[in-house]
Amino acid sequence: MKTSLFALAALSLPVSALAQVVIPESTATRVAASADRALESDALAWDFVEGITTEVGPRQAGTEAEARGREWAVKWLKANGFDNVAIEPFEMETWVPGDQASAGIVSPFPQSFVVAPLGGSASTGPEGITAEVVNVGTVAELAAMADGSLTGKIAYITHYMTPAQDGSHYGFAGPARWVGSGIAAQKGAVATVIKSVGTDYHRNPHTGGAGFPEGVKPTPAGALSLPDAANLERMFERTQGPITMKLTLTPRDLGTTMSGNVVGEIVGSDPSLPPVLLACHIDSWWNGTGAFDDGAGCGIVAAAAKAVSDAGQPLRTIRVLFAGAEETGLWGSKAYSAAHLDEPVAVGLESDFGADRIWKFESNFREANPALHNRIARAVARFGVSNGMAVATGGADINIARDQKTAIIDLQQDGTRYFDLHHTPDDTLDKIDPVQLRQNVAVWTQVVGILANEPNDIQAGE
Amino acid sequence: MKTSLFALAALSLPVSALAQVVIPESTATRVAASADRALESDALAWDFVEGITTEVGPRQAGTEAEARGREWAVKWLKANGFDNVAIEPFEMETWVPGDQASAGIVSPFPQSFVVAPLGGSASTGPEGITAEVVNVGTVAELAAMADGSLTGKIAYITHYMTPAQDGSHYGFAGPARWVGSGIAAQKGAVATVIKSVGTDYHRNPHTGGAGFPEGVKPTPAGALSLPDAANLERMFERTQGPITMKLTLTPRDLGTTMSGNVVGEIVGSDPSLPPVLLACHIDSWWNGTGAFDDGAGCGIVAAAAKAVSDAGQPLRTIRVLFAGAEETGLWGSKAYSAAHLDEPVAVGLESDFGADRIWKFESNFREANPALHNRIARAVARFGVSNGMAVATGGADINIARDQKTAIIDLQQDGTRYFDLHHTPDDTLDKIDPVQLRQNVAVWTQVVGILANEPNDIQAGE
Repeated sequence: MKTSLFALAALSLPVSALAQVVIPESTATRVAASADRALESDALAWDFVEGITTEVGPRQAGTEAEARGREWAVKWLKANGFDNVAIEPFEMETWVPGDQASAGIVSPFPQSFVVAPLGGSASTGPEGITAEVVNVGTVAELAAMADGSLTGKIAYITHYMTPAQDGSHYGFAGPARWVGSGIAAQKGAVATVIKSVGTDYHRNPHTGGAGFPEGVKPTPAGALSLPDAANLERMFERTQGPITMKLTLTPRDLGTTMSGNVVGEIVGSDPSLPPVLLACHIDSWWNGTGAFDDGAGCGIVAAAAKAVSDAGQPLRTIRVLFAGAEETGLWGSKAYSAAHLDEPVAVGLESDFGADRIWKFESNFREANPALHNRIARAVARFGVSNGMAVATGGADINIARDQKTAIIDLQQDGTRYFDLHHTPDDTLDKIDPVQLRQNVAVWTQVVGILANEPNDIQAGE
Repeated sequence: MKTSLFALAALSLPVSALAQVVIPESTATRVAASADRALESDALAWDFVEGITTEVGPRQAGTEAEARGREWAVKWLKANGFDNVAIEPFEMETWVPGDQASAGIVSPFPQSFVVAPLGGSASTGPEGITAEVVNVGTVAELAAMADGSLTGKIAYITHYMTPAQDGSHYGFAGPARWVGSGIAAQKGAVATVIKSVGTDYHRNPHTGGAGFPEGVKPTPAGALSLPDAANLERMFERTQGPITMKLTLTPRDLGTTMSGNVVGEIVGSDPSLPPVLLACHIDSWWNGTGAFDDGAGCGIVAAAAKAVSDAGQPLRTIRVLFAGAEETGLWGSKAYSAAHLDEPVAVGLESDFGADRIWKFESNFREANPALHNRIARAVARFGVSNGMAVATGGADINIARDQKTAIIDLQQDGTRYFDLHHTPDDTLDKIDPVQLRQNVAVWTQVVGILANEPNDIQAGE
């Protein structure tokens, strides 16, 4: 019924609107059929994420493990028929976690806690730091403390994060990690431990980058697993006296090393048109295998590009970008933008939020190009994807789209489980639900199939 | 209605049956009310398990941490009004896990796995063992292999365990750990890694005791977390060539050290009657905090003893036994039986299967003393506990009840989640559901209240 009404509406459009080139009906039908097939069985996305997590495993940015990941991905893209597969190398400043990570209460309640260094943490040295640990509360409470009030102490920072479908609690709780240790260092703290920025209750700390302000010397900074953080908080409740912690973290800065982006293409029939750019990142933190973050994302975008190609050569080239070194500072995304800034991209999309079902579509051209926005929205509705009102801003791996102020689409994934797994040892293949992974590929196939066959400018957004 | 029908039935009993002493109605009412109150709010069991996991933490058998656990428990029992609180020391042979535990694939797919040493494992030395890892399949498949067929190899043993309410898959899958490394050593293996005997998918290996047959020299033996075991199994599928592993485990045998049982009593009004014995164990594996296994059990039995006492002094003494060194060979349970064998116990019960809801009541006197069995069954029905047909055999901590062939009751807990947590780093306070913990205390209060006020012999079972 709805389709018929839309068809009638199209017939009543003014002639000027019909002057645009339209996608042949046969192409649209083939793309839709390819998306439907992906929903039934998507072997390719699973093959990618199973393969890279099994045959490579963790891929810490700037290390030889990440280099093995790139080589593996190049081989995989070539084997699956991608053209112009290449590594685009870049230099980066590389931090590695080191071998030792322990945190233990010395008194009054001796026991060991599970801790992981935060990205950017300094080393305590193998001898560790033994000092009183002070419960500073949240970042806001920490920020209100007097200068020098933490001199000689280890700061403990808490937060109140709960699972959210849109993942928005990451922004709510994340500052504990992003800026907490830097602020504590400014107040004189010799080190910081935080409650992991995560939502699970397993003994698997969540790492991630920690920032120190210009001019503030980085201190050792670690994340306690949530059960350990809860235990420490109970200790604060159970004693009025000082609590002494011994913290040992031995990360190292390796200086400048090489990383790289992996690119590959499905070449379109009209190379004069700007390409559709699909991005993800190939690195992962050292502690997990980078399945949810972000092996799945690379599997999804590559499988979708391939499924569109299987529906017939697209008009535009589809370029996949497996960005390097996202986790430690978007090195690959920035390097790609710097290298390709003068090569216009038609539209940028990123998959970097796990492998659970896509529930909302957003673009940054809802007002600038409502016809295309609505065509995509209608096409993905059958996969349970709603038409979102927010303006898409893209993810970490598509700096170029923001730098070029081009069109951007966000295919929002369900993030309810994401912060159970993100940046933890638990980021492993078994966490991926094959049914939801397939829904991702189906939606991406549908969306990319429309974009890659769109003859008109995809008028960039507001 | 049902109560009235039972009352009428009692009136029609032959006089001989009425010759038995009966519990005064007022006592039964008070006990039931105390059980009902426990269901609403049981502060005491939670207080125990929160306290010992926070203020003591892991309590590896035979170590100073277990000794701190005993001292903590003595103080807690005294503070909560128990009489005759004492530590009963015993000697044991003590194994400790050491500082290093790593397992990594050297080739063809280099990456690190998460591993924990099994109790009884030998040390690889800090330099580790590097050897080909061979997929031997299940214990049954391993046992069928030719002697010498694993010479120089690391054996990998799998199993197929799923969650079960009655926990019976532990018996199905457990041999991979209990006897696997011993059999592999007999076939020439230099070391063994097993798929953890557990049902979760977190990077937290399940430890537990591994046995080596008389005359077989223990080898290094470790458990991989389930995600890591799955990854290794995928590697076996993805290569026909050899897979090389480097395994480093550095446990040590400390020789003879002291451990101890903690006992305490609610003294009954007739000390000539044999006591009711309630047991649990106070030690835990080093990697968790011993919340589910078995801080909760000690909290449940102590809280129930106290709740019965609060309902009025019981006829019989209630004795709690917090056994030492259960995990590494039931040292405390055996020592208690040896020391007290000539002091008759009326009935023995143990809580050592987590803190989830009790769903079934079993005794070993269903046929020998149906009146008492049925009285208890009727009394616990209101808590959702069914009347089980199996003959109760008791748990690890009540060797004395089996050695004396006395009455035994099993209050079966829901084990569906138990093997997600058992013997893992994830055995922490947050895993305990306060509502289910209270149901345990309520059921135990009801059952112990009946037993401790039972004037007649609790005729031991079949």
